[in-house]
Amino acid sequence: MNETPASILVNGAWRPARIVATFSAFDPATGLSLAEIYPVSSYEDAEEALWAGRSAAREMAPVSPSVLAGFLDVFAEALLAAGDELVEIAHRETALPKEPRLRSIELPRTISQLHQAAEAVRDGSWRQAAIDTKLNIRSVREPLGGPVVVFGPSNFPFAFNAAAGGDFAAALAAGNPVIAKAHPSHPGTTRKLAEIAFACLERAGLPPAAFQLVYHLAPADGLRLVAHPAAGATAFTGSRPSGLALKKAAEEAGRPIYLEMSGLNPIFLLPGAIRERSDALAAELFASCSLGAGQFCTKPGLAVLCDDDAGRGFVAAARNLFLSPPSGFLFNRSGLTSLKGAVEDLVCGGAELRTGGKPVSGAGYRFENTLMQISGRDFLAKAQDLQREAFGTATLLVLAESEDVLLRIAEALEGTLGSAVYSGRREEGEDEELYRRLAAILIPKTGRLLNDKMPTGLAVVPSMVHGGPFPATGHPGFTSVGIPASLLRFSALRCYDNVRPDRLPPALADRNPTGCMWRLIDGEWTRADAAAGVQR
Amino acid sequence: MNETPASILVNGAWRPARIVATFSAFDPATGLSLAEIYPVSSYEDAEEALWAGRSAAREMAPVSPSVLAGFLDVFAEALLAAGDELVEIAHRETALPKEPRLRSIELPRTISQLHQAAEAVRDGSWRQAAIDTKLNIRSVREPLGGPVVVFGPSNFPFAFNAAAGGDFAAALAAGNPVIAKAHPSHPGTTRKLAEIAFACLERAGLPPAAFQLVYHLAPADGLRLVAHPAAGATAFTGSRPSGLALKKAAEEAGRPIYLEMSGLNPIFLLPGAIRERSDALAAELFASCSLGAGQFCTKPGLAVLCDDDAGRGFVAAARNLFLSPPSGFLFNRSGLTSLKGAVEDLVCGGAELRTGGKPVSGAGYRFENTLMQISGRDFLAKAQDLQREAFGTATLLVLAESEDVLLRIAEALEGTLGSAVYSGRREEGEDEELYRRLAAILIPKTGRLLNDKMPTGLAVVPSMVHGGPFPATGHPGFTSVGIPASLLRFSALRCYDNVRPDRLPPALADRNPTGCMWRLIDGEWTRADAAAGVQR
Repeated sequence: MNETPASILVNGAWRPARIVATFSAFDPATGLSLAEIYPVSSYEDAEEALWAGRSAAREMAPVSPSVLAGFLDVFAEALLAAGDELVEIAHRETALPKEPRLRSIELPRTISQLHQAAEAVRDGSWRQAAIDTKLNIRSVREPLGGPVVVFGPSNFPFAFNAAAGGDFAAALAAGNPVIAKAHPSHPGTTRKLAEIAFACLERAGLPPAAFQLVYHLAPADGLRLVAHPAAGATAFTGSRPSGLALKKAAEEAGRPIYLEMSGLNPIFLLPGAIRERSDALAAELFASCSLGAGQFCTKPGLAVLCDDDAGRGFVAAARNLFLSPPSGFLFNRSGLTSLKGAVEDLVCGGAELRTGGKPVSGAGYRFENTLMQISGRDFLAKAQDLQREAFGTATLLVLAESEDVLLRIAEALEGTLGSAVYSGRREEGEDEELYRRLAAILIPKTGRLLNDKMPTGLAVVPSMVHGGPFPATGHPGFTSVGIPASLLRFSALRCYDNVRPDRLPPALADRNPTGCMWRLIDGEWTRADAAAGVQR
Repeated sequence: MNETPASILVNGAWRPARIVATFSAFDPATGLSLAEIYPVSSYEDAEEALWAGRSAAREMAPVSPSVLAGFLDVFAEALLAAGDELVEIAHRETALPKEPRLRSIELPRTISQLHQAAEAVRDGSWRQAAIDTKLNIRSVREPLGGPVVVFGPSNFPFAFNAAAGGDFAAALAAGNPVIAKAHPSHPGTTRKLAEIAFACLERAGLPPAAFQLVYHLAPADGLRLVAHPAAGATAFTGSRPSGLALKKAAEEAGRPIYLEMSGLNPIFLLPGAIRERSDALAAELFASCSLGAGQFCTKPGLAVLCDDDAGRGFVAAARNLFLSPPSGFLFNRSGLTSLKGAVEDLVCGGAELRTGGKPVSGAGYRFENTLMQISGRDFLAKAQDLQREAFGTATLLVLAESEDVLLRIAEALEGTLGSAVYSGRREEGEDEELYRRLAAILIPKTGRLLNDKMPTGLAVVPSMVHGGPFPATGHPGFTSVGIPASLLRFSALRCYDNVRPDRLPPALADRNPTGCMWRLIDGEWTRADAAAGVQR
C-alpha cells in the first residue's frame, strides 16, 4: 500500500496537499478499504486554489468561444477513449454495475453533456445578448469573474462528478474556472477524470488553473471556501444538512450558491390508474425505487393513493416486489447509517413497516428493500416529520381516506424536484377533475411535473429541469440539468453603456460573432448583424 | 386634520389597519409634517396579505396573457389621466421639481415601463419555453406561486414605487400578485397609485388580491414578511443595512429576494480625457452628482484621476461648481442625518473636505454640495472604510499618484451598479492601454460599464442592466431595470414531463399561443408551432 496521499491539482500543478488528515475510499460490495490514500486538505490549499482560480478567471475573459468549446469536445472524446479504465475505477469505488449503468448509461450521458455544452458555447444564444443600437447600450451574460466551486455528490461518479459532470460542464461553458471538491466515496474516479481534464486543458490553450481539484476538506473549511470573496459561485449536489450549512455560509458573504438538496418526489396514483393497471404501477414504482439501490435525487419517497379495495391490492402487489433481496449496494457506510436512521424516524412518526427496515448482514453496504405505509390522516397529523428523505430503496405509501384527504396531503408537501401523477386512460375524463385540482396544488411546489412516468431518469435535453422550490434547491429559477439553461447559473448579466465599438466584447459587436447567435437587437430576436447605430 | 389613519388595501378591500403606530410624511422643502396620518401595520396585516396573495397566485395561474397585459396597459393609461394629481401629491411629499422631473421624466418613464411590461406579456418570449417533441418534455418560466413583496425606495415616487414602478410591473407581468410596502416618505403618492391600480385590477378581471398595499411595518415585522412561506419572492430597493437584514431573513427561510442596495459607482477620468476636456468633465460630474440632490442609486460617489497639473486643474474646476448652493432637497430627515454621518465618516477616514459638509440652516432638508478629496495612497490605506455611500450631492475625488496606483484603487473596489471610464479621444490610442487594464479589473465588479458617460439616468430599454455583484445587489445574474430581463426574477423554471397534451399550459402546447413567442423547439429557436411529437 502506498502511504503517500494522492496529489491535489492546484494552480496548474499536481502537488502534495497540506493535509489535516487522510482518508480512503471503500468498496461498497465488501466494506473493505481500498488501497489508495487521499488527503483532507487544509484551508490553505483551498485558498490557494481560490486565488489561482481568480487569476484564471481574468485570463479566461478574452478567451474565444471556440477555445472553450474545443476543450469541452476534446475532454469528452478523451473520456470515451479512457472508458474502460474509468468504468473499472468507478465500479470499484461505487459498486455500481459496469453494464449497463456505468458504461452504457452514465458515461455516454457525461460525454453527451460535455458535447452539448460545447455546442451551447459555439452557438452563444444562451447568453441573451441585447443591443439597443440608437442608444448604444448592450448587455450580455458573462463569466462571474471568479472560479465556480463544484461539490459533487456520491451517486453519479461520472455524470455529476465535480471533475466532469453537469456542473463542471456548465461552469466552464459559461467561461468560468472550476475548483472541484471530490466526493470522498469516489476519489480515484475523480482523480482519473481530473487527470484527463487537466491534460485536455493544456492542449486546448486554457490557463492551467482553469481547473483545479481538492479531494476533501474539513466541514468548517468547506464553509470558508464557498464564502470566500474570490469565489464566483458554488454548485452543490448532496444532502440537505450539508447544503443548508453551505447556503448559509455563502449567502451571508453575498456569494451565489446553487444547491440541489434532493427531496421526496411524491407520486400520486389516482383511482382510475390503480383500477386499470395496479400491478404494472407497483412494478413501475418498485423499479424506480430500487434503481441504483434507490440512491437517486429523484427517487419517489412517497406514493399517495386512495384507501379502497383497489388501493389495498396495489399495496399488496408492491409489498411482494419489495420483499425481494436488495439488488445493489449503498455507496458508503454513512449512507447505511443515515438510511437506517431515516426509516426509524419514519416509523417513529407513525409509519408502519410493511417489509425491510434493516441493514443486510454480511459483507458490503446493503439495506433491505423497505416499504412503509401510513393512513392519510396519520400522515397529515405529522406531515412535517414524515417528509424525511430515506436515501435508498425505501418508500412510504400513504393511503388517503378520500380524495379530499389526498388533496390535503398534496397541500402539506414541501418543495420538491419532481412530482408525478398517474391517472386512468380508458374512460373518457376519468380522474380528470381530481387531476386538475391536484396539479394546481403540486405545480408551485415542484420543478418537474410528470404524467404517468416515474421521476428517476433525467433526459439531458434543453427542456429538462432538475430544480424546484426550496428546500429541493436554493432557488426556483434555475436547473442543474438541461443545456443551455444550466449555464445561466454561472453568469453575470453585464451591460456596456456607450462603450466604444473596438472595446466591446465580440458578443456585443455589431457583427454577429458566430453567425448563429440569437440576439435581441432593437427589440427583435435575430441572428443578423446589428445595423451600425448612432456611435461616436 | 383627519386623525383617522389611512386605510390599507388587503384581500380586495380598503380597510383600517391593525396599527402598532402611526406616521405622517413631511414636506422636505419646509420640514413640516403633512396632514395625513398613515398606519404602521401590525404583523397580522402583513400575514393576512400574504395568505390572500397566495390564494390570488393560484387564481392567477390560469389567467391569460391578454388579461395581464390588459391590466398593465389600462393602469398605464389611468396614470396618464391622473397625471396632474399624481404630480401634485408627489411634489408635496418629495419636493422634487414638477417640471421636468416628475411630469416630463419620471411619470412618462413609469407609464412606458408598464406598457413595455404589457408588451413582454403579450409576446411571451421572455418565458424561455423549451420543447423536446420526441420525448414530450417541455419547460417554461411560470409565476412563483406566491405574492411578490415589493419594498419601494424613497427616491423615485413613481418609477420605483411599490405600487406602480419597475418591480411592480415586472412581478405582475410575470404573473404574480404584488404586496406593496410603501416608502414612508411618500405614502400619499403610493396610496393614490394604489387606488388607481386597484380600480384597474377589477376592470381587467384579475383577482382582487392581485395587488395589496401596506404603508409601513416595524422592522422586525418586515423581516417576518419576507421570510414567510407564502411569499413568492421579495424585491427591495434601498439602503444597504436594511437590505442586508432582509436578505438574511429571506434566505434563511429559503425565500428568493432581490436587492438593489446602491453603491459608489466609481468614475475613472484618464489622463487624456482630463487633458482635453477638464472643465467639461467637471461640469458633467457636478451635474450627475447634484441631479435630484444626489439621491440616485447611480450617483458617482467616487471619482479617480491622476494627480498631475491637469488633474489638479480638474479638482479646482469641480470645487468651483460644488461651491454653489444646493438646488434641491433631501427626501427626509433621516436622509439628512445619514448624509451628515457619511461625510463625517469619510473625513474621519482621511478625506479632506474641499467644500460643503454641513446641513444648510433654515427650513427644509438641505445639505451643502460636498466635495472631498484624498490621495490615492491614503485611499488604499483605508479602502474599505472609504467606500461609504453618501446619499446626496457628495463625492470623493481620489488623486492617484500614478497609473499603477489608479489600477490598485480599482482592484480595491467592491461590487457596484455602474462604473464609468472617461478617456481621451483626440490622439489615436491615447489612454487605450490604461483603459484595457482598468476595464479588465472593473468589469467583474460592475453591472454596467460606461464610457464617457455618467451612470445617472437609466434608459428603460431591453439592454439596460441595473444590477451588479454583491454588495450592489444580492445576485449578479439579474437586473431590476430593462424589460423583459427584469421579469426573470419573478419566475420559476418548471418542466412538464410526459404531460398529456390537454393538460399543458398554453405556452407549451404544440401550437404557438401568441404566434410571436420564441420557443426552443427540438434545439432550434422558432416562432413556429411544434410538430406533433410522439405523444400518446
